[in-house]
Amino acid sequence: MTLDKVDTPVVETLAIVGVGLIGSSLALAAKEAEAVKTVRLFDASGDVRKRATELELGDVSDTLEGAVAGADLVMICTPVGVIGQAAGACGPHLKSGAVVSDVGSVKASALKDMLGISREDVFIVPGHPIAGTEQSGPDAGFSTLFDGRWCILTPASSKDEAYEQAVETLSRFWKAIGSTVEVMTPERHDLVLAITSHLPHLIAFNIVATAADMEQVTEGEVVKYSAGGFRDFTRIAASDPTMWRDVFLNNKDAVLETLGRFTEDLAALQRAIRWADGDALFDLFTRARGIRQSIIEAGQDTAAPDFGRSTDED
Amino acid sequence: MTLDKVDTPVVETLAIVGVGLIGSSLALAAKEAEAVKTVRLFDASGDVRKRATELELGDVSDTLEGAVAGADLVMICTPVGVIGQAAGACGPHLKSGAVVSDVGSVKASALKDMLGISREDVFIVPGHPIAGTEQSGPDAGFSTLFDGRWCILTPASSKDEAYEQAVETLSRFWKAIGSTVEVMTPERHDLVLAITSHLPHLIAFNIVATAADMEQVTEGEVVKYSAGGFRDFTRIAASDPTMWRDVFLNNKDAVLETLGRFTEDLAALQRAIRWADGDALFDLFTRARGIRQSIIEAGQDTAAPDFGRSTDED
Repeated sequence: MTLDKVDTPVVETLAIVGVGLIGSSLALAAKEAEAVKTVRLFDASGDVRKRATELELGDVSDTLEGAVAGADLVMICTPVGVIGQAAGACGPHLKSGAVVSDVGSVKASALKDMLGISREDVFIVPGHPIAGTEQSGPDAGFSTLFDGRWCILTPASSKDEAYEQAVETLSRFWKAIGSTVEVMTPERHDLVLAITSHLPHLIAFNIVATAADMEQVTEGEVVKYSAGGFRDFTRIAASDPTMWRDVFLNNKDAVLETLGRFTEDLAALQRAIRWADGDALFDLFTRARGIRQSIIEAGQDTAAPDFGRSTDED
Repeated sequence: MTLDKVDTPVVETLAIVGVGLIGSSLALAAKEAEAVKTVRLFDASGDVRKRATELELGDVSDTLEGAVAGADLVMICTPVGVIGQAAGACGPHLKSGAVVSDVGSVKASALKDMLGISREDVFIVPGHPIAGTEQSGPDAGFSTLFDGRWCILTPASSKDEAYEQAVETLSRFWKAIGSTVEVMTPERHDLVLAITSHLPHLIAFNIVATAADMEQVTEGEVVKYSAGGFRDFTRIAASDPTMWRDVFLNNKDAVLETLGRFTEDLAALQRAIRWADGDALFDLFTRARGIRQSIIEAGQDTAAPDFGRSTDED
């Protein structure tokens, strides 16, 4: 499956900083859709730069400056925790009028970090493609990762027309590689994602670790009978540890709020089990099933696994 | 994909009591593999009996007695909560030497319930195929549901040679329809499944309900961005409410034990987030990823979703 080509490139030069799953997929997508004329890439790791060259992702630069100077659109695709560092390093080299964005799973902190660029003549528009797999690194990328997915943009509140144009340009870029764009404030994004993504991942990590710690049951047995419900959780829990550490460190408030709700509800469930309240259990399970139906009806249910497409045929 | 045929039928007549996903799949599997000569079915619901006839699952009887009288192997495939009732109703009609088993997700209570048969001349061997989908009802069944899956048998502790033969017969039946058989005590089964299946399902139910209750975020937003991690949970939470209510009511102790562990670990995780302990988070996530690797290496990771095969292409 490939992306349709757009009639005219959205911008001339795209610079990608950080060539992991997302960065490499962006490069492949932009090329395949002909959304840009030139793709330039930089990664802090020499090994990754070498691999990016071998994979023919674009023009790989040995310096950050070489990648971002003159670029119309700069996409910072580093872990959330180093966005500030990457943005600060880019800052002096950006051309006037450049649009700077990112792909991190937390937006309020990303906006704050990117504002460290301190240039009045560039446009900072944070973004977050709701797509990914548990894989990491440049080899994991593929061009259709964002196709049919949502991309949330969280511009700063600004009535400046030039800034709105920049948001529009970024929006057209994401559409060119197959995404549907939604705009909201960084705070709303962080709350919605806390529920739909961050909390589920936290729970998955926790359940996998809890199971591994139960001494009465061997890891062997847990692994063997994992098809019973456990296996889906392990797939989510196989996500990149660096990325997720940074998510929780940078979306603390929203995560703690949703986690508080979750544990209150879980205590009520635990109580219902202890007191053998079959009706309460039945009602809850029926309600949960209904929500599943809503997802199917909304067309958000596809053959692809949870957060995009898994490249390991799982 | 179809099952291989066995050289000789394992038994002559199989009776299936309860024609849901598992019951109908058993009928189709037994027929396709030629594991038995005759399949008889009964369900308490007239509509289900009618559908079973239309689906040509086997000889559908309008009475329980008509299905089980003279059967060599009787598989009780009702929800866990009515196993006792079904077993008691079968009891007087069973032929001497019949093997009686079940497919429920909890085994200590199933054994206790089936012992209500009170016949010294039949052999009660509880079983649990680790397979299933979120679908329910006779139309959901398919012949390869158990193929390549584990089936756990939990015989009563008995050194009687005739009983051991019965366990062997049941074991050969499951192998004939593609499963690998494992034998353990009912108590061990219930603990292992509490961790690998019951707790994951409980957590999934809870997270779906928690998300739906957060007033600051609309159900529409939760549904829309569900690809972020939430969607896999909703699939698990779409499981049959009756079945799961009965599981939690009948495996209370093991579930409460694992739930206690889970919440203790979750509180530690919550604390690490509040205190921004990045190292603790990173270590936990790295460990969880390692467990995923064990599952892949054990070959328990397949293209099929969590608990078997989903028939809705999800």
